[in-house]
Amino acid sequence: MGIEIHGTAASTCTGRVLLTLFEKNVEDYKIVQVDMAKGEHKSPEFLKSQPFGQIPYIIDGDVKLFESRAIARYVTKKFADQGTPLYGSSPKDAALTEQWLEVESQSYNGPISTIVFNLVFAPMFGMTTDEAVVAAQTAKLEAVLDVYEKRLSESKYLAGDFFSLADLSHITYTHYLMNVAQKGAIYDSRPHVKAWIADLFSRPSTQKWLKEAGFAK
Amino acid sequence: MGIEIHGTAASTCTGRVLLTLFEKNVEDYKIVQVDMAKGEHKSPEFLKSQPFGQIPYIIDGDVKLFESRAIARYVTKKFADQGTPLYGSSPKDAALTEQWLEVESQSYNGPISTIVFNLVFAPMFGMTTDEAVVAAQTAKLEAVLDVYEKRLSESKYLAGDFFSLADLSHITYTHYLMNVAQKGAIYDSRPHVKAWIADLFSRPSTQKWLKEAGFAK
Repeated sequence: MGIEIHGTAASTCTGRVLLTLFEKNVEDYKIVQVDMAKGEHKSPEFLKSQPFGQIPYIIDGDVKLFESRAIARYVTKKFADQGTPLYGSSPKDAALTEQWLEVESQSYNGPISTIVFNLVFAPMFGMTTDEAVVAAQTAKLEAVLDVYEKRLSESKYLAGDFFSLADLSHITYTHYLMNVAQKGAIYDSRPHVKAWIADLFSRPSTQKWLKEAGFAK
Repeated sequence: MGIEIHGTAASTCTGRVLLTLFEKNVEDYKIVQVDMAKGEHKSPEFLKSQPFGQIPYIIDGDVKLFESRAIARYVTKKFADQGTPLYGSSPKDAALTEQWLEVESQSYNGPISTIVFNLVFAPMFGMTTDEAVVAAQTAKLEAVLDVYEKRLSESKYLAGDFFSLADLSHITYTHYLMNVAQKGAIYDSRPHVKAWIADLFSRPSTQKWLKEAGFAK
């Protein structure tokens, strides 16, 4: 009996979990579709498992877990002996992975999710794009990417010369900004960031997620 | 040679690191004061160690680390064999600790930090309190605390019947809202949350932090 993922593959947070499973070569999982258009994620039944009404959550034997970064950490630790070592190979690597995963969560996720919401999801649901908010959050994101540009001139990936959970955690929202909202210029103007993004999107796990989520054939 | 903490004890994020050290009975540390009033955290020298210009960062031998939750995880793992087991006693406990630590980071920290900024720090620096923002963020915080109230009716602490890094991570901002901004009613109106908060603030580590930060004698 494998891992049940309650969510939908195209969602940024469900995608983070899927990418982790793919990197760790975990094949024993299934997605239990949550129909957000029907409001299933706000149903009393769903709220028993995820009290904030967000996707995804997983069930793995007697472990029921939500929050995509917590799930990604859990999967990485449970399958430590297989697939990509997403925490590197030493306690120092692991500490730096956690540092840059926090940067993604605290500094990258806020602006990019607000921009993607305004440019992609708001029009989809008949809401108005707030251009002033987009401009302000783009300036914030630019400042974060300036830090990344410097960091990535020193090491190939954020936590060092190894692909980690911190890099992985950036992929799904970056896809929405770059390929759906068509705002990839923000990455292209920074050579080290541009090379890093190209590397992240060349990974088999990313390609697999794009297919599973319906963005690629 | 112990852990160097570059920051200031009264800061919410430096406080998170200190609380972790206290719970793990780590005595070999020193605080290197960063004078934020003089803008030291934005100096070129500081930015070499913390590129976002925020406190704290630590130096521990060849490990240099920022982001308070990443530092707290690092300290907890490094000193796994002493003090309070802040990840509980099983992989499941650890997974649930990470889940609720993410809830703190993603859902609790945003509204409470905005409220505390407006009610405490803005007046301190001659800025205006935005009452509409305070009202909106208070409504958000109330919704989060409703989830906590239900959760804490099932277990003594967030991740289970053990005090974890997830509980610890709430203490510093809660202190500012409750004791500095005098808005503790938001906790008192929920009996299980109220008991949880009383428990957190009765801990010797919390009392030690309040003294070190100059809030108690």
